[in-house]
Order: sequence, then structure tokens, then C-alpha cells
Amino acid sequence: MIKAGIIGSTGYAGQELVRLLLQHPEAEIVWYGSRSYIDQAYADVFQNMFQLVDAKCMDEDMDALAAQADVIFTATPQGLCASLVNEDILNKVKIIDLSADFRIKDVNIYEHWYGIKHASPSYIKEAVYGLCEINREDIKKARLIANPGCYTTCSILTAYPLVKAGLIDPATLIIDAKSGTSGAGRGSKVANLYCEVNESIKAYGVASHRHTPEIEEQLGYAAGHPITISFTPHLVPMNRGILVTEYASLMPGVTDADIRRAYNDAYADEFFIRVLKEGTVPETRWVEGSNFVDINYKVDSRTGRVIMMGALDNLVKGAAGQAVQNMNLAFGLEEQAGLKLVPMFP
Amino acid sequence: MIKAGIIGSTGYAGQELVRLLLQHPEAEIVWYGSRSYIDQAYADVFQNMFQLVDAKCMDEDMDALAAQADVIFTATPQGLCASLVNEDILNKVKIIDLSADFRIKDVNIYEHWYGIKHASPSYIKEAVYGLCEINREDIKKARLIANPGCYTTCSILTAYPLVKAGLIDPATLIIDAKSGTSGAGRGSKVANLYCEVNESIKAYGVASHRHTPEIEEQLGYAAGHPITISFTPHLVPMNRGILVTEYASLMPGVTDADIRRAYNDAYADEFFIRVLKEGTVPETRWVEGSNFVDINYKVDSRTGRVIMMGALDNLVKGAAGQAVQNMNLAFGLEEQAGLKLVPMFP
Amino acid sequence: MIKAGIIGSTGYAGQELVRLLLQHPEAEIVWYGSRSYIDQAYADVFQNMFQLVDAKCMDEDMDALAAQADVIFTATPQGLCASLVNEDILNKVKIIDLSADFRIKDVNIYEHWYGIKHASPSYIKEAVYGLCEINREDIKKARLIANPGCYTTCSILTAYPLVKAGLIDPATLIIDAKSGTSGAGRGSKVANLYCEVNESIKAYGVASHRHTPEIEEQLGYAAGHPITISFTPHLVPMNRGILVTEYASLMPGVTDADIRRAYNDAYADEFFIRVLKEGTVPETRWVEGSNFVDINYKVDSRTGRVIMMGALDNLVKGAAGQAVQNMNLAFGLEEQAGLKLVPMFP
Amino acid sequence: MIKAGIIGSTGYAGQELVRLLLQHPEAEIVWYGSRSYIDQAYADVFQNMFQLVDAKCMDEDMDALAAQADVIFTATPQGLCASLVNEDILNKVKIIDLSADFRIKDVNIYEHWYGIKHASPSYIKEAVYGLCEINREDIKKARLIANPGCYTTCSILTAYPLVKAGLIDPATLIIDAKSGTSGAGRGSKVANLYCEVNESIKAYGVASHRHTPEIEEQLGYAAGHPITISFTPHLVPMNRGILVTEYASLMPGVTDADIRRAYNDAYADEFFIRVLKEGTVPETRWVEGSNFVDINYKVDSRTGRVIMMGALDNLVKGAAGQAVQNMNLAFGLEEQAGLKLVPMFP
Repeated sequence: MIKAGIIGSTGYAGQELVRLLLQHPEAEIVWYGSRSYIDQAYADVFQNMFQLVDAKCMDEDMDALAAQADVIFTATPQGLCASLVNEDILNKVKIIDLSADFRIKDVNIYEHWYGIKHASPSYIKEAVYGLCEINREDIKKARLIANPGCYTTCSILTAYPLVKAGLIDPATLIIDAKSGTSGAGRGSKVANLYCEVNESIKAYGVASHRHTPEIEEQLGYAAGHPITISFTPHLVPMNRGILVTEYASLMPGVTDADIRRAYNDAYADEFFIRVLKEGTVPETRWVEGSNFVDINYKVDSRTGRVIMMGALDNLVKGAAGQAVQNMNLAFGLEEQAGLKLVPMFP
Repeated sequence: MIKAGIIGSTGYAGQELVRLLLQHPEAEIVWYGSRSYIDQAYADVFQNMFQLVDAKCMDEDMDALAAQADVIFTATPQGLCASLVNEDILNKVKIIDLSADFRIKDVNIYEHWYGIKHASPSYIKEAVYGLCEINREDIKKARLIANPGCYTTCSILTAYPLVKAGLIDPATLIIDAKSGTSGAGRGSKVANLYCEVNESIKAYGVASHRHTPEIEEQLGYAAGHPITISFTPHLVPMNRGILVTEYASLMPGVTDADIRRAYNDAYADEFFIRVLKEGTVPETRWVEGSNFVDINYKVDSRTGRVIMMGALDNLVKGAAGQAVQNMNLAFGLEEQAGLKLVPMFP
Repeated sequence: MIKAGIIGSTGYAGQELVRLLLQHPEAEIVWYGSRSYIDQAYADVFQNMFQLVDAKCMDEDMDALAAQADVIFTATPQGLCASLVNEDILNKVKIIDLSADFRIKDVNIYEHWYGIKHASPSYIKEAVYGLCEINREDIKKARLIANPGCYTTCSILTAYPLVKAGLIDPATLIIDAKSGTSGAGRGSKVANLYCEVNESIKAYGVASHRHTPEIEEQLGYAAGHPITISFTPHLVPMNRGILVTEYASLMPGVTDADIRRAYNDAYADEFFIRVLKEGTVPETRWVEGSNFVDINYKVDSRTGRVIMMGALDNLVKGAAGQAVQNMNLAFGLEEQAGLKLVPMFP
Repeated sequence: MIKAGIIGSTGYAGQELVRLLLQHPEAEIVWYGSRSYIDQAYADVFQNMFQLVDAKCMDEDMDALAAQADVIFTATPQGLCASLVNEDILNKVKIIDLSADFRIKDVNIYEHWYGIKHASPSYIKEAVYGLCEINREDIKKARLIANPGCYTTCSILTAYPLVKAGLIDPATLIIDAKSGTSGAGRGSKVANLYCEVNESIKAYGVASHRHTPEIEEQLGYAAGHPITISFTPHLVPMNRGILVTEYASLMPGVTDADIRRAYNDAYADEFFIRVLKEGTVPETRWVEGSNFVDINYKVDSRTGRVIMMGALDNLVKGAAGQAVQNMNLAFGLEEQAGLKLVPMFP
């Protein structure tokens, strides 16, 4: 059994990790870290865990944790993981970081967009970007895995095959993303109260959202050169789910069949990526609770553009599920272990 | 592997059965029955099942089905199961009926409340009422199991220990129940449109809802004599979940400790029933997606009443989950097989 | 034009007062009080008011306010209004208090249920309980009006005619109430975040909610003697609306016609109370945005009980609308001035 | 008093017209047309109108209607208005058509996108496109007004000043639109059931939605030449509201100040269009129930694009409110009569 510790287990992503690991056949949780709820019973914070979790919330003593655990998940605010990692820790455990600390290779870009100083830039190079379908082999050997963001996972996977195959002009790529409210976290802010979110939709972080450079970096690798994109997230009155609608101009002569083929080539063997049948759009309800990404596209011959669409559950494939998938790869388990969750509807 | 057939697999309860059985370690689905969608791919009706279910929807040919299956689930409108059951079928398969056809022992009461003639009253006596925590031993031997209704399961389990122990006056029992909208089914009615249900709450079936006699019969067994209750269901703008708030006058001299003891005596060993800690109320969000029933109570010394509260997921413990639990019992499997689902939040 | 000042204008009830007074033909707002947002533009707090309200938020300087205003609305936490009121103020302005400070005549009951010391008990006797349909004549002459609570207004008006006419046994009265989330206020608490409230329902304040003694006092006046009731509020995932479902045993010999007559006698001439047609249940969606209370009932001959139901918009008839109705009465305006709002659906 | 008849008064847009006209100081409704509910009390269909509307639903006898009314609103499926209009009718009444029949000047484009034959193409030229802020003077003289679509109104008004001023390249315009569910109408379809829409988001009509040519035509007038755009609508789990997020490349040398100036020049005097302060995004909650359109933009210097955003209530400014605004203009009333509705929040 893999022994897992979670730092930040009382946020929404941390709690989802608990849900997934409790149902994982080869993992057990040995540390429920939560700075806000130290010494309180975990099941008092999340009553769904009543009689399923007996543990109390712990602090973030990395040395003690590293002595007990095989893997540490950090589902914490930006900067914390970078401040905790060191050679001693990494010699004992693998770290899967759900924050952005090790996602971006250029520390200047990180510090610019996040507005904080990186505490351990020397580990950025080693860290593997944990987008499993793209970096599978590197993840298997990694000690430090940067688990991608929720918007990022959906945005990249939806466009990746077309960028990689050179079928679209990356300079024209526009990503209009919509997220459920759990992506906003469990902090008590007026803007996230029920009555403020319900019955409304808005854009936020327009032309300035932190996931932008992460998407640009990864799709830049696929394109073979740096790219700049537009990315606009929106807040939707629902608990879970991300939908991206992506627009790009087709390169000259590209056909619908070329696009279909590029998706199939990239994803036909990927269990967690479902390229839908022609004419069917991704909807977040069909992936809720699961690790699936549903993807499809529509060629618009009037405008010479392709509209790509992708849907996932932001707490699963967009956070905790992908983290478990990374754990499975890094420890040589079956990649789907604990993740064969049938989407729950309605 | 238990081979399961589902008649009515494209309603919400039927689809939830599919979700649960796909994740069950010892069952497989051999028949996706659906009168409305015959010959259509099941995954075209429920796109969450894309790449998970290849089958097409089938008719309700019971003879063909009985030749292939070990168990048949009927998640169908009232009257259909009663019209299909016969000795030949029951000699080949077990039937777990999610409709009301075999729940009520007095055929006159059934025909009065449901307004239809019962097609096979001779099987009513044999049928076992599939409330697992109450009738476990009979279920193990049953050929024909009447799976309880969603409101009913929650209403009965919440009051049962106190009625059984004689701590409350059953004649004063009032059940105010609240249900998510999946309980209204997948039929296309104006009243169930998004804009009609959203941002509203209403009572319905006031003093006339069909689950009333079912609750009265079962709690009457616990009381040792027939009882008459008030039951009022309400429609709540959420997908899943039932909450019951039940009021009854305490018998003279009954203390809080008596009540706590009665619940513990009844449910301490029941995995799926969680009697909450003092001061904690059941909330439907904490049981969503799982087979749990969360129960608690509050004694009101000012009025001499006890307020009992219970919460469950109407599609799981209130329908498909309990049906699987019945299957497990009836086939000698571990009772919790396929049902150790951690509630999904948020 | 009546000049109105609002203390607590940035809570949900305060903001609804702004909405109503802006549309009132004979009132204008001269003071937008808000301790939390002093000196900020009101329209920056509530962007719906952009280009409609130019004012900035002010403190709660009662002397300055009383010099400018004809009426002061206090939509503030318990205790504040009681701490501000004095003879000097009341000689200059009328006060309509949306908190509970002057609702309960027995100061000991107030201090017991609210857990605070009353700062000006000498004014309790003078204060008029502002339930317009019941105390209309007294309100017309009042200087200090205690605007009823949201649950209270709905609970009392629904049962009042039957209690008054002696048709039900008040000792058996059980009120099961359901409220939208705006009733929980605009404070930033984890429990009121979107993801915590959405897709769930729960009871709270079981056998201990502060609106209980207020209901008991007012219905006690109708009964002619003190009464004790059960009252259980529930939180519903919707913005606005209160629905009450009330249960009581009929007095011997009481018929359906007696009940219909009692409602008609009490409310036939009341514009804001709509006794629905037989067989139609109140639903909160049909009163949203308006000052209406929809009421109906069902006699249950099986149990000898009547089930009464009432629905209103908690921010209108349950708070700001009733406050404006009180203002209209107290200043000799047409009672419906500014309140002829057609319910908005969907 | 203007006498108004409504054909299609029992759809969501028709019912919103009723709400607005009931509160209009200079209009009264003389005909509640509804093919589906003939002879039923209107208030039985929409219970919010109980005791406010006594009328029964009528058929669509245009001659009888034209004899009684000054204006006829047709809130009906495509094709109906075109089949009813003739010289005799138009000599007696003005028609404000909420369907698409007279919105598009090129009948071939209409017939291509709507898939039906136009029954009275001779009136297309006369019909005035009722986007009040753009075509105000023509509307004042019109007999036949084509009330714009909900998506269209929001999409056009948000981009219009920049297209008109030549600040953006119209060939790069991409409109990603999000709508509440009332836009889907009140027909009983499985896809619009509460449990199907709730907790999900999807695109629909991708690269094929019928509002596309309407947007292209109107913005083409502003550009001075035909344009082709991408338009993608999405279904959002909320009752009301449309948000558009529009992307376009800036023409060389265009500055933020140029854009701000263009918006101010176009809309500074428009009561119903609120150009928000810098840094503030439109949100549908801030316009709900009102006739306002909230607009703002963000220049993205990284990509050389401007992101424009607009929000309105699809049933008010997107349908019934604009229809009333058109009526006001066409009959010489104050343009804002009956439309000074403060947005209702929450």
C-alpha cells in the first residue's frame, strides 16, 4: 500500500483527494494536513467522511510526514510547496504539487504572474509537468511532479493534437473557459456566497489570469515555438465542471478529416480522453465525478475556423484525479487504479 | 459474476443502477431494457456512459431476459412488474422491483392509492419488502423483492427505532419531506423544466401522496398496530437528495438518553446508517452519491416533542443503491459489495 | 416626498429597501448607512445600482440622520436599533426597525432567546408590531415600528385566521419552514458559500430558532392565551422565498367550509394576501419580487389535521416590502404605494 | 392608454411582456393570445398573475384583435407573424414581432437559416429592425417592427461602437455567448428538464446558430461592408441573463483611450446602456429584471486584441423590455415609460 500524506486536505481539491484515495485499492492516507483545522476531526470539517475517516487534522511538519509517507500531495496556496521542498525530503518521498509552484519552467514568468518570489527555483528544472497523457514517461521517473491546473488541463488537452500536427495557427488561438464554483476554493469571501454566484455569470481575470502562461508554455512545446494566446475564464453557477470553447484559424487546406485524424492519433488509446462522435458536444454533466475529459470540435467553413470544445471535472481530472493518476504512474501502479469512476448523473 | 438485466434502464433510477453495477466487482449487466429507446445505443441516451457501455437498448421480453440473467431489476412505472411476473420467470431469476407493485400487502390499499388493478396479487404475499436493515434475513431467501420508495426509506428508517421502542406516540407522527428533482423522473413535463423548478419550493401530493400507506404499513409493524400519519413531500431545486423532518410527541417520561440508546441499539452495527453526533444535523450534501442514510434528532422539552431528521440520496439508498444492496443479500454476496461509495462533495 | 434614511443599507434586506424606495412614487433615500463600506460608492457595493444611485455609504450618526430624514429604517444586527433610539430621535422621525429589538413585548423572553441585554426596554411597550394586515390601525399612529421577521410574517399570516376563529388546536401547531439563502445574510461564512449551499437542504436552529417566541406571542394574541409551538427552519438552495408548511389538529366538528370561510373573512379585502383556489399550492416562484403572500390549505380527514401552506418573498413581504408598507401606513400614503410589483417569473 | 394585444402570451417572453405591460402607466392588455391554452384563465397558467389578470387565453384571430388593439406583439414561433401580417392589419395597428420573421433583409438568408418559406416577403423592406439605440428615428415612424433576438441585442450593442468607429477588424470578431435557460422556451423537452440543465454547461448550435446572420447583417451596416463572424451560444444553469464575451483584433495604433471614447460617444446618453467603470466586468446578476445592458472591455496588449463584454436580461432587454421600448417609441411615449425597473438582486 502506498502511504499518502496530504497537505491542504481541507480545501475542495484536498477533500476530493481524500475521496479518491479512500476508494483506491493500493493507497492509504496517513496524514490529513490542514493548517486551519489542526487537531479537529477531519470528519467534523467534511461530514461526508463521518465513520469513514477517524483521523484528526495535522500541521505541515514535512520531516515527520516524509518519515511516514511514500508520497506527499500539496494542495496548498502558491508558494508553500516551494518553501518546503528540499533534497532530504525528495530522497524519502515523491511530491505531487497541486499548486503552480513547479509548473512554469521560466522562474521569471512565474514570479511575474504570481507576484511572489520562488523559494526553491533550483528544483524547477527537475520537476515534471504532470499532464499524464503528454508526459507519461517522464512522470514515471519523477520525484517532483507539478500537477497541472484545472483550466490548463482542459485547455491544453483540447487543442494539443491540432497544435502538434500544425493544423491550426496558434497565434489565432482564443480560449473561452467556463468553470464551476468549486474552482474558487473554500475561502469565505462575499463574492463566493451562494446568493452572489447563483443566477449569474461573469468573466474574471480578463487578459490577466495566471493559467495563461502555463497554457502558452505547454502548447508552445507542441507548436515548437513560443505562442501567445487569449484566455478568459468565467464563473458559472454550478459546483463542478470546466468547459472550454477554443477558436483558431485553420491552416490552409486543412480538412475536417485531418482534424478528426489528429484527435484519433493522439487520443485513441487514452482511457481518460473521450473524443466524442461527430455532432455531439461535450457537456460538463457527463464527466462529473470522473477523471474523463470529453472533447469534440466543429469546423466552420464560413470563417475558416475550428471550434474545439473540452469538458472535465475540475476537482478530478482538473486536480485530485490527475494527481492520483500521476501517483499511479510514479509508483508503477496501473494508471487507472482507483480512477475507474463512472460519471455520476444527474 | 451475477448477470443482471434492467427493465427501465433509461429513467434516472435505472441509469443509476447502471452506474452502480458497472462499478460492482461481482455483477455485470446483460440487458439494458428501455421501451422508449429500443435499438438506440445506451451511451447515446446517457453520454456519461460513452466508451463504458457498448450495448443498445432492448425491449422487455421477460422470457429472453430470464434466460440470460440471474436477476432482473424493474425500474418501471407502477403496474408493469406485476404484469410480467409469473412462476416460470421466478423459477429462473430473482426479481427486484423498484416500483410499488409489491410493497403493500393489502391489495385493496394498493389499488385505492395507485388507482390501478393489480395484475398478479397472488405474489404479494411472497414478496419481501426490501428495506435491508429491517428485513435482512427474509431478503436473503427471497425470489421477489419489493424495493422501497425513496421517501419511504428515509421516512421509515428515521422513525423506526423510536416507534419500535415505544418512545413516541405514532398517532402524532408528522413527516415533512423534501426531495431533489430527480425523484420526479425524466418525463418531459412543463412542471419539471429547469425554469419551473429552479428558484422555487412547493409542497405537492398534500395529504394524498402514494408513499403514505407504505410508510404507515411498515411503521405499523414496528408499532405493533396500524397507524395513521401525516406525510407531505416537497420539491426542492437540487438534483439529488431527500431530507425528512419528522415530529412526534414523546411518551411520558422518555428522556434524551432513551432516544439516543434506541438509535444506537438499532443502528450501531449498520454500515449504511450513520447516527450523527449530538448537535449535528443531517444534510443531503453529505450523503450525495452514496448509500448512506444520515440520521439525528433533537428533543424539544418546551413542546414535549422529538424532531427526527434523516437524509439520503434518493437515487442510491432511495432506489438503485438499495436495489444493489438487496441483490447482494439475495445472492449471498458481501452486503456492501459495490456500495462503498464515498459521498461526493461538493 | 418622504425622506428616508437606511441604516444597514448594504445587507440584502437593506439593498432591497433601496430597490423598493427608488421605485416608490412618494419617497426618496437621503442616507445610505453602512458601517462596513463607509465612504465607498453605494453602486460599487451593489453594481445593479450603477447610474441609479450616486450616493456614498454613510455612518450611523442618528442625530445627523434624524435632522434630514422623516423615517429611518434600521436593517441591522440585533441590539443596534435598541441602542440608538431615544426620545429626541423619536420626536423627529419615525423608526421602522427590521431587527428583532422591539418585536417581543416581554423583555425577558427577548434577552433569553437573543442572548443580549436590551438597551432601551422602556420603548418596547410603545413599539407597534408591524404586521400590517393585523395591526393596521396601530401602525398608522406609531413612532416606532417593529417590522416582523421573514419566517414570522409567513408563519403567522398562514395560521392566523384559523387560530383566531378557534378552528384548530394551537397546542398541536407545527411549523416546518423553508427559506432561500438570502435570509442568511451577506456575511462571509464558509457555511453560506455557493458550493456549501447548492445541491443540499438541511434544518437548522432546530427547537431553538429565535423566531419561535415571536410567532408564539402573536398567535397567542389570536388564540387569546399563550401558546407553545414547534418551529423548524430549513435552508433551501435558492436566492429568495419562504415556504411554510403548518400542521394542526382540527377542533371537533370543523369542516373544510369553516376553514375556507375563516380565510376569506380575514383576507378577502387584503391586497397583499392571496388565498389561492382550492387544490392549488403556494410556490415561492409565484411571489418572487413582490409583496404578496400566497396561502392555501388542505384538510386531511384521515388524520383530522389541516395542512396550511404559505409562501412569500423573504426580502419583500418578509423584510423590505413590509417595511415600506409600514411606512405607507405610518405616513398616510396609499398602503400599496410603490409595492404594486408583479411577481417576476422565471 | 395604448391597447395591447399579445399573441403567444404564455411563453416566457410573452409572460414577461404581461409583467411589464401590467406595470406600464400608459398601456393596458386587451388580448392574451395563446393557442395552447385557449379559454383557460391566464392566471391558471402563470399563477404569479393570480388576482392581477382576470382574462382568459384567446386564439389568434388577427381581425378581431386588430379591431380592439393599437399594437400587437407577436411572441410566437418563426413564420407565424409573417403569415398573419397584411395591409389591412397594418392600417389598423402597429405590429411588434418578437420572432425572427422580419429581422433579416435578405429573404434568401432568412429562408436558408430558418429552413422555412417566408409567407410575406413584401413586408421585409418596410419592417424596421427594432434595436432602439441604433434605429430610434426609424422606429418612431414604423408600422412593423422586428424586435431583435436576445443574443443579437447583446452581441451587437457590445461591439457596435468599435465596429462603427473602425477600431477593430470585424473579420476577427468572435462572439462567445452564454444564456440562461429561459431562452430555451417553455416547451416540454427532456433536454430542458431541471436535472438535465442543472449543474452543467454546454455549447449548442456551434457554427450554425440562427442568430448569426442577424448579428452579421447589423454589424455589417456599422462596418460599411458585409462581415462574417464566429458565434457560439452556451446554455447556463440559471433562469435569466445573457453574457457575451467578444474577441477582436485591434486595428493598428488603436489605444485604450480610443476605445473608451468610442463607447462613450455611442452610449453616454443612452439610459439603458451602462458602460461600466474601468476594471469592472458585466455580470448578469446586476441587470436581472431590468432593461439595462451593462458593457465593458479590456485591451490585451499581449495579443493585440480587445475583449468586449456585455450583459443583459434575455427576457427584458433581450425580448419583452425592448418590445415595450419599441412600443414607447412608436407611439410617442417617453422611451423609458414602464421600464425604469431597478435590477433585482439577489
